[in-house]
Amino acid sequence: MADTVNQQIVLKSRPVGEPQESDFALVESPIPQLGEGEVLNRTIYLSLDPYMRGRLSTNASYAASTELNSVIVGETVSQVIQSHHPDFQPGDFVLSNHGWQTYAVAKGKTLRKLDPNQAPLSYYLGVLGMPGLTAYAALLDIGQPKAGETVVISAASGAVGAVAGQIAKIKGARVVGIVGSDQKRDYIVKELGFNVGINRRTQEIASALKEAAPDGIDVYFDNTAGEILEAVLQQINLGARIPLVGLISQYNASSPPPGPNLLPLLIKRALIKGFLVSDYQHRFSDFARDVTEWLQSGQLKYKEDIVVGLENAPRAFIGLLRGENFGKLIVEVSQ
Amino acid sequence: MADTVNQQIVLKSRPVGEPQESDFALVESPIPQLGEGEVLNRTIYLSLDPYMRGRLSTNASYAASTELNSVIVGETVSQVIQSHHPDFQPGDFVLSNHGWQTYAVAKGKTLRKLDPNQAPLSYYLGVLGMPGLTAYAALLDIGQPKAGETVVISAASGAVGAVAGQIAKIKGARVVGIVGSDQKRDYIVKELGFNVGINRRTQEIASALKEAAPDGIDVYFDNTAGEILEAVLQQINLGARIPLVGLISQYNASSPPPGPNLLPLLIKRALIKGFLVSDYQHRFSDFARDVTEWLQSGQLKYKEDIVVGLENAPRAFIGLLRGENFGKLIVEVSQ
Repeated sequence: MADTVNQQIVLKSRPVGEPQESDFALVESPIPQLGEGEVLNRTIYLSLDPYMRGRLSTNASYAASTELNSVIVGETVSQVIQSHHPDFQPGDFVLSNHGWQTYAVAKGKTLRKLDPNQAPLSYYLGVLGMPGLTAYAALLDIGQPKAGETVVISAASGAVGAVAGQIAKIKGARVVGIVGSDQKRDYIVKELGFNVGINRRTQEIASALKEAAPDGIDVYFDNTAGEILEAVLQQINLGARIPLVGLISQYNASSPPPGPNLLPLLIKRALIKGFLVSDYQHRFSDFARDVTEWLQSGQLKYKEDIVVGLENAPRAFIGLLRGENFGKLIVEVSQ
Repeated sequence: MADTVNQQIVLKSRPVGEPQESDFALVESPIPQLGEGEVLNRTIYLSLDPYMRGRLSTNASYAASTELNSVIVGETVSQVIQSHHPDFQPGDFVLSNHGWQTYAVAKGKTLRKLDPNQAPLSYYLGVLGMPGLTAYAALLDIGQPKAGETVVISAASGAVGAVAGQIAKIKGARVVGIVGSDQKRDYIVKELGFNVGINRRTQEIASALKEAAPDGIDVYFDNTAGEILEAVLQQINLGARIPLVGLISQYNASSPPPGPNLLPLLIKRALIKGFLVSDYQHRFSDFARDVTEWLQSGQLKYKEDIVVGLENAPRAFIGLLRGENFGKLIVEVSQ
């Protein structure tokens, strides 16, 4: 253990609108001491996810606000350095929730040991972790796509969308993905096997959807809300299901923008249901079994966008909210 | 059969915004001749319901548009005058769908015979008919209120809302009704037993709801959408259910207004589901049994607003969209 200091990124000021790098500060503190039943971990990977934007504001959200001058929260993969807990030995890899810092002490019971031989460790922050379970449970339990139905997915090359779209394909649906660049559009169609990709920055959504989903839309996996949701509602089929998984389009808004007119929900007897992954822990074992199998068989592909260095986390996070990442965004904090 | 002419109210011009009396015309035509298997009926009661507004426009709706110069549609209770069908005899009362006219010929198989001794005949257009089934199925199958939960109902003194609120009370919920006058507010609280009434014209909805539903809102039976839905969403509890039954607030709008921001749905993992009564015919026998029993036991009260004379239907319908009726609006076309 060469380091003697812990590097942390803390919230310096609450962003208004789009976060700025100056809203974050890198600070140093002594590496914390171990108590009874505790484990000292070094962070290897930090997950950056859009929901974190909510924590930077004081607006009501499902995630509690981060206090000013506190470490930003986030899921991590770590390696055990020192342990006062019988289940963990130095060198073990664990899934942890240590946030934006290089070291952290945690109660052993809050950690889950990871097997580095089963999958790349960073996968537990993505396709085999919370974003993967989000894709799996929101699509299958709320969306419930049937073979031959049409599924539309926004933010379709992202950590959640890319997995959801491929699972919908595995279930026999026609899948249309909406992304933010031609490169991402090519990726979801050519690499992931989506039937159609739409670039929301260069194509008019309503007409592109009409062409891409000539039989109407049965499931809309909504990561963004905003104008995409509005356009989708005009083209839903009878009994359509819309899991509302994210509202990326408005996370930077300083006041909540209006939503879509809901008449199509009535006309089509459709449903919109808010989704939060913490409600679906009972699906974890099904999810882990199925997704592991699909990864191994090659039916499910997975792409990561790995940024090296904790100090680059703020810039990477700002880019995530702009859609600049390409694949699941991970910060490699140490090796 | 004294009459020799049929009086009909037809759509003369498509209303833009609020309908005007000049959009309707009273015309006369010969009473139609009977064919094989057909029945000639005289209309006794005509039901006026908000959904009919959708049929007067060419905007996409769940109800097909009424053609210009055609009779406006509507459910009716009629008496058989002449019959070429073995199941119906002159003098029988039937539930029919004859629209805004004094006489009509129908296939016998489209009619349902009514027993005038079991309930007042007009009830089959309200509490024992489509509006009653709407209240019953949308509340119980989508709203699913549990004892002790809080249920909010808009248009709460109307044909659907008043029944839904009383059923929620029967199921043990705390019930808050939103209405458009102090008289209606007194009625739902003092006559129907709602816990709290809110007059949306004189009270600020958000703060009134906060006071009326201190433990938050578990079910919102939405007849109106618009600003009430927006205010409710700010106060929903985890896992709230919102049957979207009507959008009265926007039926006269010439272009669809924006809807509510949907972030609260995500935060609270709540659902909004569009409801159309035609999907719930399988619930009819449960509904008829329960509601008949509640009416007989006095647990369910029912109020009608009866307007006499077909020629008064347009004015009454315009008033319905303004919330001027008090109780289920029925036109008594003949005696």
